[in-house]
Amino acid sequence: MLKYQHIANEIEKYIQDHALQQGDKLPVLDELMIQFGVSKSTIIKSLELLEEKGVIFQVRGSGIFVRRHRRKGYISLLSNQGFTRDLESFPITSKVLELDIRKPSREVAQNLNIDQEQDVYHVKRIRYIYEQTLCVEESYYNKSIVTYLNTEIATDSIFDYIRDGLGQKIGFSDSYLHIDKLNEEEAQYLGLQKGDPKMDVETIFHLSNGQPFDFSRLTYNYIQAQFFIQANGQ
Amino acid sequence: MLKYQHIANEIEKYIQDHALQQGDKLPVLDELMIQFGVSKSTIIKSLELLEEKGVIFQVRGSGIFVRRHRRKGYISLLSNQGFTRDLESFPITSKVLELDIRKPSREVAQNLNIDQEQDVYHVKRIRYIYEQTLCVEESYYNKSIVTYLNTEIATDSIFDYIRDGLGQKIGFSDSYLHIDKLNEEEAQYLGLQKGDPKMDVETIFHLSNGQPFDFSRLTYNYIQAQFFIQANGQ
Repeated sequence: MLKYQHIANEIEKYIQDHALQQGDKLPVLDELMIQFGVSKSTIIKSLELLEEKGVIFQVRGSGIFVRRHRRKGYISLLSNQGFTRDLESFPITSKVLELDIRKPSREVAQNLNIDQEQDVYHVKRIRYIYEQTLCVEESYYNKSIVTYLNTEIATDSIFDYIRDGLGQKIGFSDSYLHIDKLNEEEAQYLGLQKGDPKMDVETIFHLSNGQPFDFSRLTYNYIQAQFFIQANGQ
Repeated sequence: MLKYQHIANEIEKYIQDHALQQGDKLPVLDELMIQFGVSKSTIIKSLELLEEKGVIFQVRGSGIFVRRHRRKGYISLLSNQGFTRDLESFPITSKVLELDIRKPSREVAQNLNIDQEQDVYHVKRIRYIYEQTLCVEESYYNKSIVTYLNTEIATDSIFDYIRDGLGQKIGFSDSYLHIDKLNEEEAQYLGLQKGDPKMDVETIFHLSNGQPFDFSRLTYNYIQAQFFIQANGQ
């Protein structure tokens, strides 16, 4: 972790420790330099990172302010670091339904940018939040990148394993959302009725070198699913 | 517009003009400097902006690559510059159902960070895409910021008017998504059946000084609504 990233984390911790709210003013630049014992250029880079992450906003000539939404219990739709990390404050568990190595369909191969002869890991699992069904997930991992998976890993966090176990660096993601009605099978998995509303989220996750490694489709329980999106100004 | 923003637009135009696809490599830094006739520090700031906007990704020691999702016809859930600007390539029209000045409910006042004695503009309209209903929208504008509105403005783009007519600078936004079933009234507006799926998006839009000016609730037609989210790596 680079110094400015470390300082950004420290500032974020400062905001939490002091229970600062949206619109609260942070110390001025000179004070932050002294407080964290770093140069002006480091503080500026830290603040830029925090602004990008939606933790603060800066108003020219006026100061640095805390940005913090007020509603609790919402899942961020912007994180691409996997649920378990994302929802650290939520008790997320998983039940693995299927785990196998197979040849991808044309759709899966296209989204992973591989050909249909290459192997993928296929994982189907139900994810629970507070012991209620949150979503049913079907994921396909490029096996030349995610070289090994088993039920134990898939019951826990696959993304933590890819990062820490396989040493891969996770980069950006593209997600596509649709609203529709549950079919019979989905309804059964989620404990709902056929025809009830659902949100499908298809995501292509890339390594930081731009290579797609995971194509997943999550079908959410509409009763549990509350989502949050922060957008920055341009 | 600052120089690096202008150059960022030029690079984006270059990508479009050359029909570059996801993963295509851009010229190296030195070539970009020459091509656009600017300094290294300007090019670097332009590239950082484009990375933030999800137009490119940079791989250390390897180069600058185009980031471009492949699916057409999706609405970005990240833009906070209003639909009409956002969906420039889509034919969006509006029908204004109600427009009045009123005292806000407690919920509206809280979200706009004003007290219930202050006036708000209330606008209810249906928005159409390709002449199909896209959503029904109910918005509340802090009248001390959005000092005037009429039906003609509300039929067109309210955000363009706030920016260009009132000279306000639009900043960040916070959105909350829920999936649920349409009630009778919503179904009628959207031309669907009661009980059909819907997505509700509540958004608080802030000026760049952090002041909330618009609290809106959009109820989407699930058949028309396809959404897209790009997330950057950390």
